[in-house]
Amino acid sequence: MKVNGKLTRTIWPLADPRAVDVIDQTALPYEYRVRRLASLEDVRHAICSMQVRGAPLIGVTAAYGVALALVPRADDDTLLAAIATLAATRPTAVNLHWALARLQACLTPLAPALRAEAAWLEAARIADEDVEQCRRIGENGLLLLRSRAGARGRLDLMTHCNAGWLATVDYGTALAPIYAASAAGIDVHVWVSETRPRNQGLLTAWELRQQGVPHTVIADNAAGVLLARGGIDAVVVGADRIAANGDVANKVGTWLKALAAREAGVPFYVAAPRSTIDFACPNGELIPIEERPADELCIVRGHDAAGRPGDLRQLPADEAVANPAFDLTPARLVSALISERGSCPASGAGLLSLYPEERHG
Amino acid sequence: MKVNGKLTRTIWPLADPRAVDVIDQTALPYEYRVRRLASLEDVRHAICSMQVRGAPLIGVTAAYGVALALVPRADDDTLLAAIATLAATRPTAVNLHWALARLQACLTPLAPALRAEAAWLEAARIADEDVEQCRRIGENGLLLLRSRAGARGRLDLMTHCNAGWLATVDYGTALAPIYAASAAGIDVHVWVSETRPRNQGLLTAWELRQQGVPHTVIADNAAGVLLARGGIDAVVVGADRIAANGDVANKVGTWLKALAAREAGVPFYVAAPRSTIDFACPNGELIPIEERPADELCIVRGHDAAGRPGDLRQLPADEAVANPAFDLTPARLVSALISERGSCPASGAGLLSLYPEERHG
Repeated sequence: MKVNGKLTRTIWPLADPRAVDVIDQTALPYEYRVRRLASLEDVRHAICSMQVRGAPLIGVTAAYGVALALVPRADDDTLLAAIATLAATRPTAVNLHWALARLQACLTPLAPALRAEAAWLEAARIADEDVEQCRRIGENGLLLLRSRAGARGRLDLMTHCNAGWLATVDYGTALAPIYAASAAGIDVHVWVSETRPRNQGLLTAWELRQQGVPHTVIADNAAGVLLARGGIDAVVVGADRIAANGDVANKVGTWLKALAAREAGVPFYVAAPRSTIDFACPNGELIPIEERPADELCIVRGHDAAGRPGDLRQLPADEAVANPAFDLTPARLVSALISERGSCPASGAGLLSLYPEERHG
Repeated sequence: MKVNGKLTRTIWPLADPRAVDVIDQTALPYEYRVRRLASLEDVRHAICSMQVRGAPLIGVTAAYGVALALVPRADDDTLLAAIATLAATRPTAVNLHWALARLQACLTPLAPALRAEAAWLEAARIADEDVEQCRRIGENGLLLLRSRAGARGRLDLMTHCNAGWLATVDYGTALAPIYAASAAGIDVHVWVSETRPRNQGLLTAWELRQQGVPHTVIADNAAGVLLARGGIDAVVVGADRIAANGDVANKVGTWLKALAAREAGVPFYVAAPRSTIDFACPNGELIPIEERPADELCIVRGHDAAGRPGDLRQLPADEAVANPAFDLTPARLVSALISERGSCPASGAGLLSLYPEERHG
C-alpha cells in the first residue's frame, strides 16, 4: 500500500549483507521510521516489542529471522535453537508457529551448507504468498460487502485493532476488503476503535489516511453505542488464530464488539489467511491467551483545569494490573470467515469446505 | 470516606463568605487538590470540566451553585438564569435536573430576600440526604452480594467508571455495597476498568486504595475475557439516569460489560439513589447521550523501542473523532437495581414496588 503516495510493503529483504527492513510500528502514527533487522536477536526483539505486529506479518518476519540466524552457521542445533527462540516470542498468533514449522520442514532435509540460502528463498516465498492471499481476501470480502452496500454505493464499517496492511506484508486482512471496496468506487467510512492498551487503532487510522479512506477514531467503549444507533453495515476484524471449529482469538476487545454487533443485528466478519487457521486446535478454549506487561497500561491524565490535555503518567507503581492481550469470539457470533479461498460459515464444516485437503489432516 | 486516613466528604460548605470546597477530580489520582467554588461560574466550570463528576455529586454541586448564584441578588430572573445555566452543563445525568427542579420548587414561593439562605439550607439537605441514601444503598447491595459470596466469605467483583465515594457526597453508589462488604469482613477484590477516554477507573482505583480494598486495573477491552474466564461473582455499576422501565444510561462501555456478563452468567447490578431515576422518561431510548469534546481522546504512544512508555501525543489534528460519553443498557440485561429503598427487578413494576408513590406520578 502507499506511504506518502509511494507503494511499499511492510517488510523487504536486503541482499548483501543479508538483512530485512521493516516499518517500526511503535513509532507510528507519529513518525515513519524504518528499522533494519540483521540478526536473530534483532528479529526476536522486533516481535517481542511489537515493532512488527499483526499475525501474518509476525509469521513472515519470523521466517526471515530463521534465515538470518543461519547466515553464520546452519547446523541442526542452530536451526532448532533459532526456531525455539522465535516460537517463544508470542503465544497467541498461530502464523508464527505455522511459518516456523514450514521453515523447519523445508530446511531439515537439506545439507547445512544449503540451508541459509533456502531459508532466505522460503521466507521470501512466504512473504509473496501473504501478499497474494491478502489481495484475494480483499476480493472475497468485497463480494460480501457489496451485498451490504446494496444499491446505495455506500458502506459504513467498523474494525478493531489493526488488521490492515501494517499487520501483513501488503493489503491487510480485515482492511483488504475495505481497500477493495474503496477501489471499486464504493463510498466507504470506517469506525476505528483506538484499541487500548497499545492503541493499534491509531495504526489503522494512519494507514487508512495514507490510502485516502475516510474514518473516525473512537474509544473502545464507544463501539457499543455506535452499533446500537444503527447505520453500521458490518464489523470486519482480523484474527490471531482461528480454531478448527471457527472460534476466533483476536485482539482483546473483539468479543465485546461481536456481542454488540449481534445485539444490533450487524454482521460480524473475520478475515484471515490460511496461516491463521489452526486445524490442529479443535476449539478456541485451547488457544493460549498472551498476558502482556503491566506497564502497557500507561495512562494519560484526561485534562488539566484549563481543558488542556494533561501530562503522561504511569499508574501508581504498586497498582495491580492485568493485561490479557487477546480474547476469544465463539464461532456462533461470527457471520462469516473470509480467506484467500472465499468466505464460509464460521464452523468446522465451513472451514473444511474451503480447505477440503484438511479433511484427513 | 477516607483520604490519607482522614474522613472527608467530596464537597463541603464554607459559611463566610459562602463557598463550597470540592476535591478536584481532574487532578486525581496523581494529586489531591481541593478547589474552592465561590460563584455560579465556578460551579458551572467545575461541572463542565469534570472537576466534579458523578451523577449524584453533580446534582449536589448544582444545588450549591444555585445557592451561590443567589448571594448577590435573588430575584426570579436571577434564579431562573442560574437554573438554566446549570441545566445546560451536562445532558445525561438526571440528578442535575432533579436537584435544580427541587431548588426551583423550594425557592420560587419565597420572597427574594429569603431565597439565598433557603437555597443554602436546601443544598445542604440534598447533600445530607445523598450521604444517607448512599449508606443505605451499601446496606441493600450487601444483602445481594452476601448471597453471591456464599459460604466462601470471598467476593470477586467488577465495576466500570467511578460510581464510588467520589461520584457522590460519601459512600458511593456501586462502590457502597463493596465498602459495606469489606467492612463486614468479606474478602473483596474489584476489577477496575480504566474507562477511556477520561480514565475514571483510576479514580475508582485511588479511592479503593484509600479504603484498603484490593483491586486490579484493566483496559476496558479486557473486561470481556476476564468475565469469560469465570470466577467473577458480580458486576456492579452506577447510573446517570434510569428510565421508568428500568433501562440504564451509564458511562460509555457499560452496555458492553452487561452483554459480556450475561454471556458469562454473571449478575449485573446497577446501584443508584432515587434522584437518578427519571419516572418521567418512559424508556432509555429517550435519554439524551452527551457527546464530549474530541480532544478527550488524547493518546499515549504505547512504548518506545527500548520498552519505555512513550510521549503523550494528541491524535493528528485533522483526525475525525466521535466521543459519546454514555451508552444505554436495556433493562433485560440488568439483574437488579439497588437503591436506598432496597433492590428490585429492572422494570417498571420493580421500580414502582420501591417507589409506590410514583404510581400516579
